[in-house]
Amino acid sequence: MANGNCFGVLFSITTYGESHGGAVGVVVDGCPPRLPLTEADIQAELDRRRPGQSHITTPRKEADRCEITAGVFQGLTLGTPIHIMVRNQDARPQDYSEMATTFRPSHADATYQAKYGIRNWQGGGRASARETIGRVAAGAIAKKILRLAAGVEILAYVQRVKDIEAQLDPAQVTPEQVEANIVRCPHPQVAAAMIQAIEAAGREGDSLGGVVECVARHVPRGLGSPVFDKLEADLAKAVMSLPASKGFEIGSGFAGTYLTGKQHNDEFYMTPSGWRTRSNRSGGVQGGIANGEDITLRVAFKPTATIRQAQNTVTLDGEDTVLAARGRHDPCVLPRAVPMVEAMVALVLCDHLLRHQAQCGSLNLPEWEGSRFNASETAQALT
Amino acid sequence: MANGNCFGVLFSITTYGESHGGAVGVVVDGCPPRLPLTEADIQAELDRRRPGQSHITTPRKEADRCEITAGVFQGLTLGTPIHIMVRNQDARPQDYSEMATTFRPSHADATYQAKYGIRNWQGGGRASARETIGRVAAGAIAKKILRLAAGVEILAYVQRVKDIEAQLDPAQVTPEQVEANIVRCPHPQVAAAMIQAIEAAGREGDSLGGVVECVARHVPRGLGSPVFDKLEADLAKAVMSLPASKGFEIGSGFAGTYLTGKQHNDEFYMTPSGWRTRSNRSGGVQGGIANGEDITLRVAFKPTATIRQAQNTVTLDGEDTVLAARGRHDPCVLPRAVPMVEAMVALVLCDHLLRHQAQCGSLNLPEWEGSRFNASETAQALT
Amino acid sequence: MANGNCFGVLFSITTYGESHGGAVGVVVDGCPPRLPLTEADIQAELDRRRPGQSHITTPRKEADRCEITAGVFQGLTLGTPIHIMVRNQDARPQDYSEMATTFRPSHADATYQAKYGIRNWQGGGRASARETIGRVAAGAIAKKILRLAAGVEILAYVQRVKDIEAQLDPAQVTPEQVEANIVRCPHPQVAAAMIQAIEAAGREGDSLGGVVECVARHVPRGLGSPVFDKLEADLAKAVMSLPASKGFEIGSGFAGTYLTGKQHNDEFYMTPSGWRTRSNRSGGVQGGIANGEDITLRVAFKPTATIRQAQNTVTLDGEDTVLAARGRHDPCVLPRAVPMVEAMVALVLCDHLLRHQAQCGSLNLPEWEGSRFNASETAQALT
Amino acid sequence: MANGNCFGVLFSITTYGESHGGAVGVVVDGCPPRLPLTEADIQAELDRRRPGQSHITTPRKEADRCEITAGVFQGLTLGTPIHIMVRNQDARPQDYSEMATTFRPSHADATYQAKYGIRNWQGGGRASARETIGRVAAGAIAKKILRLAAGVEILAYVQRVKDIEAQLDPAQVTPEQVEANIVRCPHPQVAAAMIQAIEAAGREGDSLGGVVECVARHVPRGLGSPVFDKLEADLAKAVMSLPASKGFEIGSGFAGTYLTGKQHNDEFYMTPSGWRTRSNRSGGVQGGIANGEDITLRVAFKPTATIRQAQNTVTLDGEDTVLAARGRHDPCVLPRAVPMVEAMVALVLCDHLLRHQAQCGSLNLPEWEGSRFNASETAQALT
Repeated sequence: MANGNCFGVLFSITTYGESHGGAVGVVVDGCPPRLPLTEADIQAELDRRRPGQSHITTPRKEADRCEITAGVFQGLTLGTPIHIMVRNQDARPQDYSEMATTFRPSHADATYQAKYGIRNWQGGGRASARETIGRVAAGAIAKKILRLAAGVEILAYVQRVKDIEAQLDPAQVTPEQVEANIVRCPHPQVAAAMIQAIEAAGREGDSLGGVVECVARHVPRGLGSPVFDKLEADLAKAVMSLPASKGFEIGSGFAGTYLTGKQHNDEFYMTPSGWRTRSNRSGGVQGGIANGEDITLRVAFKPTATIRQAQNTVTLDGEDTVLAARGRHDPCVLPRAVPMVEAMVALVLCDHLLRHQAQCGSLNLPEWEGSRFNASETAQALT
Repeated sequence: MANGNCFGVLFSITTYGESHGGAVGVVVDGCPPRLPLTEADIQAELDRRRPGQSHITTPRKEADRCEITAGVFQGLTLGTPIHIMVRNQDARPQDYSEMATTFRPSHADATYQAKYGIRNWQGGGRASARETIGRVAAGAIAKKILRLAAGVEILAYVQRVKDIEAQLDPAQVTPEQVEANIVRCPHPQVAAAMIQAIEAAGREGDSLGGVVECVARHVPRGLGSPVFDKLEADLAKAVMSLPASKGFEIGSGFAGTYLTGKQHNDEFYMTPSGWRTRSNRSGGVQGGIANGEDITLRVAFKPTATIRQAQNTVTLDGEDTVLAARGRHDPCVLPRAVPMVEAMVALVLCDHLLRHQAQCGSLNLPEWEGSRFNASETAQALT
Repeated sequence: MANGNCFGVLFSITTYGESHGGAVGVVVDGCPPRLPLTEADIQAELDRRRPGQSHITTPRKEADRCEITAGVFQGLTLGTPIHIMVRNQDARPQDYSEMATTFRPSHADATYQAKYGIRNWQGGGRASARETIGRVAAGAIAKKILRLAAGVEILAYVQRVKDIEAQLDPAQVTPEQVEANIVRCPHPQVAAAMIQAIEAAGREGDSLGGVVECVARHVPRGLGSPVFDKLEADLAKAVMSLPASKGFEIGSGFAGTYLTGKQHNDEFYMTPSGWRTRSNRSGGVQGGIANGEDITLRVAFKPTATIRQAQNTVTLDGEDTVLAARGRHDPCVLPRAVPMVEAMVALVLCDHLLRHQAQCGSLNLPEWEGSRFNASETAQALT
Repeated sequence: MANGNCFGVLFSITTYGESHGGAVGVVVDGCPPRLPLTEADIQAELDRRRPGQSHITTPRKEADRCEITAGVFQGLTLGTPIHIMVRNQDARPQDYSEMATTFRPSHADATYQAKYGIRNWQGGGRASARETIGRVAAGAIAKKILRLAAGVEILAYVQRVKDIEAQLDPAQVTPEQVEANIVRCPHPQVAAAMIQAIEAAGREGDSLGGVVECVARHVPRGLGSPVFDKLEADLAKAVMSLPASKGFEIGSGFAGTYLTGKQHNDEFYMTPSGWRTRSNRSGGVQGGIANGEDITLRVAFKPTATIRQAQNTVTLDGEDTVLAARGRHDPCVLPRAVPMVEAMVALVLCDHLLRHQAQCGSLNLPEWEGSRFNASETAQALT
């Protein structure tokens, strides 16, 4: 519980698995009972994450077929832990043999070795992006709960690759636009330019980074927690735990620091269905708690550390050397990071949905008026 | 444990208290026994955080005198919970009476009300920066452990206020430079300009934001955790849980996404005392685990939400209205945010120090070679 | 969070304080907002626990006046952490001076010293029963929530002192009977015999143990968790964490192991308001989950370890010696253990009430039928 | 994390799986790196737990072959989560068809249905003893760590079946004596009588309960935690979370309450290798912390709830009915409960070993003297 392989408090997940070990998987605990759930619900998201989905992702061939071995009965969740597993298939450990003794710059090889005195060097072991299979699988369940319980919609997309940037209004982006191209940028022309840039970097054995933006719509007002588990804090941790992430912003982010308070504050106004804010520089969160407006956030992903170009590095035995990585790698992680970001955001929001219900849900008290949280009403009022 | 008022796993803290309630405080659990500790150790950090410390901070007069009521005996920690409390003294709830019924834009008033159906509206209640007293007090203990156990030094400073920016090399900044002026920017000329800007904003009833940068030196290689509790993830959560923070970066952050992998990677080289990296775009962390280089991070703080200028807003009863806040507020939170950022970083690193020792510390095994973690040796080797 | 001074997941408490340090206290996190709460609610339970309440308890004079310094506003809980503190007053550390260097047999002196290399030896330090003040204070809040939300009633009493045993039907015992005498045994004649026995032991500088029985009525069906956090497991941990407890039973307990399955099983039958069981050897719990019948449990408390008679022991410096304890001690902990047991049971049930609501509460789902948990209806149906 | 399917703080496990779902398994997190570990280490313990191992256990045929799919590399643990899975093979859901609609008395059927509004009724689903496969598998790892790190030996055995009781000295029992017969009672004559009684109960379609006793030898002094996570509290929770357990005792337990303090206390005396106690009514724990003596505990297991004799009960639809269970069940769970109790005790002790090392382990401090915990030295000194 305290070793960094679990995430979430009430809707919580534990992932396991190495890139070229036997299997990767996840145990999802705390799922409400009687949710309709099939492997197809999960596979749809895994397919957006899997390698080999296009020519700008790693050519590793993994169908990433998931199997639910526990927690679902006759198509409904039981309220018991859900176990989802994916067998590794296209493992080629021999492609990584030089990594047994040579540390890739800016990768986790050296630090794992320093921490544990051992590591599974085949394809990055536990530090491989294959670990995120469990996150995406669990995120698919979280998304479904959020959608059914409160109409929440979570949508991420590539906003920038290196310096190729799309000007987008988060409120207007649709899932169809995002899935319309292989780079997952909802602006077709910019997407084409991004793809060209990624192709070029791949040819040169180099790699690119960029920014994924994410919007969560119809998040019920009141979700979140005011001190350490502020919604923005939990979201920051969630996405900063993804491989290659280097920065996080919510709402106005770093740009907002150039404004004065008068310019930055989001003024309130009344509507027939309750208060709203005229602007949304807060990014949907005030004091750690959702205000009902769209939650908007951005994540910086560095260029992939594993590249084919030669780099200076050192060996396990403490010798200087030069490494030009073999193996199969993404020249740009961003297209596949999109479903990962969505999954992490969904996990945070679903956890806070249950946490809110625990503390502030209606206890049906005759003498004591609870806070009468009603997720669907709130969501409706905001639509 | 699951309600967002605790932070940390093994070196863990629980804070309590409202701005104008009777007291604020913290319980620190998991502190190793026999650490020399006095109230003076803690007061020194609280004095850097307290209101009224200069003319560019809120004029609220609080000595913020701390009292240790448990966990220390004859000047040494007992290994039992340490309780530190500060009584609120200069409370003037009447100054905040309009906040009982009117929501400040971009503040936590409206969302607390939505979540709990009640709030202590006096001076922000639990959402006040007074809550951070407990964090800073606990951070003082964490800092002392880190310094004694591994020579870790943590130093934050104001890097930018609005568009007034200091060009600084994190590796060269000293504590004396930071404390040499009231805005806590280690560049004297830039500091002077920042102070002028804050004074001007204060006069106009407006407010400013900016960026705090933090460096942690001599962090033992191996601290951290590879998946959800990556060091950068826990650091992000830590600082994003501070009031008014809107963004987080580690190492190259968002700027690094404009580089290619070849440009971005930190190449390794050997030294007589082990491997090092030639550059530090990783910010001291690879794959979630410290690599022994300086950990560098930046936090964006928005302009203070509470301003004296008139703003449109709504009342508790759902009426549109106009609010010009009274009460006492900081025109810029950054000078006082510096010790808060240091405290949060210290809490994360101290927690991971104990976590690392738990899993990878020497179990004195005759048959099984543990990973022989030795914090002070590692730190020494890096100096 | 992981150092043993916190208890509970959603309704969670953290206690601090040593017997003769400045104060003892508790932070209660996760309390639902808008619960009416005053210091009087808490004081009533503390008065049942406090020393000096009768001539068969320790003569230490402590009013144990509690102060709520956070989490309550205008008589209602805020949903933020509630901090309750009691200052130590009648501390006489000089009475315990020999304990600085001499270990009391069967007390925590020697093991604290072995674990931490230090201990506050004044009056037992953290191992003193004063630590339970925080538990009883928090338990008073838990009891109030349980009563208001679901009509739950929790009642403990002394069932046996040494071999003086009361034949009681847990279903029939009333709070008035329990509080009618100073030993808290609801059977007046047996109570008188118990008091005589305790008086005699006190005179001889010896001590007595016994059994506290507890019944929880109207616990909503469905509370609990099926695997590690079975209701009986959490209850066992709760009461086995009280000082001097050596055994735990639920329902038929050890005696039930002398029956066959056919004799032991609780047969179901239908009533107009749902199923019930004809017998209650299960003690209100099946498979870790409350079945709506009375929860019944028993706790064995050993005779107080600190006695005035001379005993062989050793010193801190490793010398054999003889100790006859001075200081003020209870010749029998059971009368004061009654409110402690009630508090611990209340903490477990309140935590599980919130946990149940989190996972199985109504999420107000239009498409998906939640489990429609209604605590008060369930409780009513069982009455 | 908070839904009752995880156990332990630093050495923590999460189990999943239903009796007749696809598989049961466990994720073990926090295992120190570089521990030699193979499937054979685990299989040895699973074979002691598996059904069909003798004619007095359920005839269900399950080889319970375990597969490690993550966390081990080239025969050594990686420090990453270890995943162990066992496929269900001899599932005959049709044998349980009446359980879809009829609740077994004193089983979890009715309460699961009440809690979740759904349950996997095939063979008991999550409430089946098959869930303990994960516990026993993880316990095998914990045992190995404890043995290698500190020479700890954990041994459980059947002490009583119904009223057939063995008089045993826990300090003298050997593993060979326990495994010498199918009922796992180290007293051969009493074992024979127990087997006869179980055979008779099985023939009559009835079932028996009894007591398992467990001793843990060479537990390092200092393990444990003084308040809520007292060693006896965590042990109580651990074993009371096993199916069918109804009572727990440590050391003198309930019997000790018939003694006076003078009779009950364990006097200290010096030996060349440190202090010891003359008696061990404390059961190896004082104030929640191990004192280095044998830890002794007892667990009451009720007679198996599922019996073939006819019983009155009710249906899912609220009708009174009569049930005579089919399916395959143990007439007495005790022989198979022995490895389960050992596993749970091992999990608690291993967790506390890591927790102790985290807080009180040597931080290699030049200025600050840590408590110099040395598990193997301590263990040796006690031998």
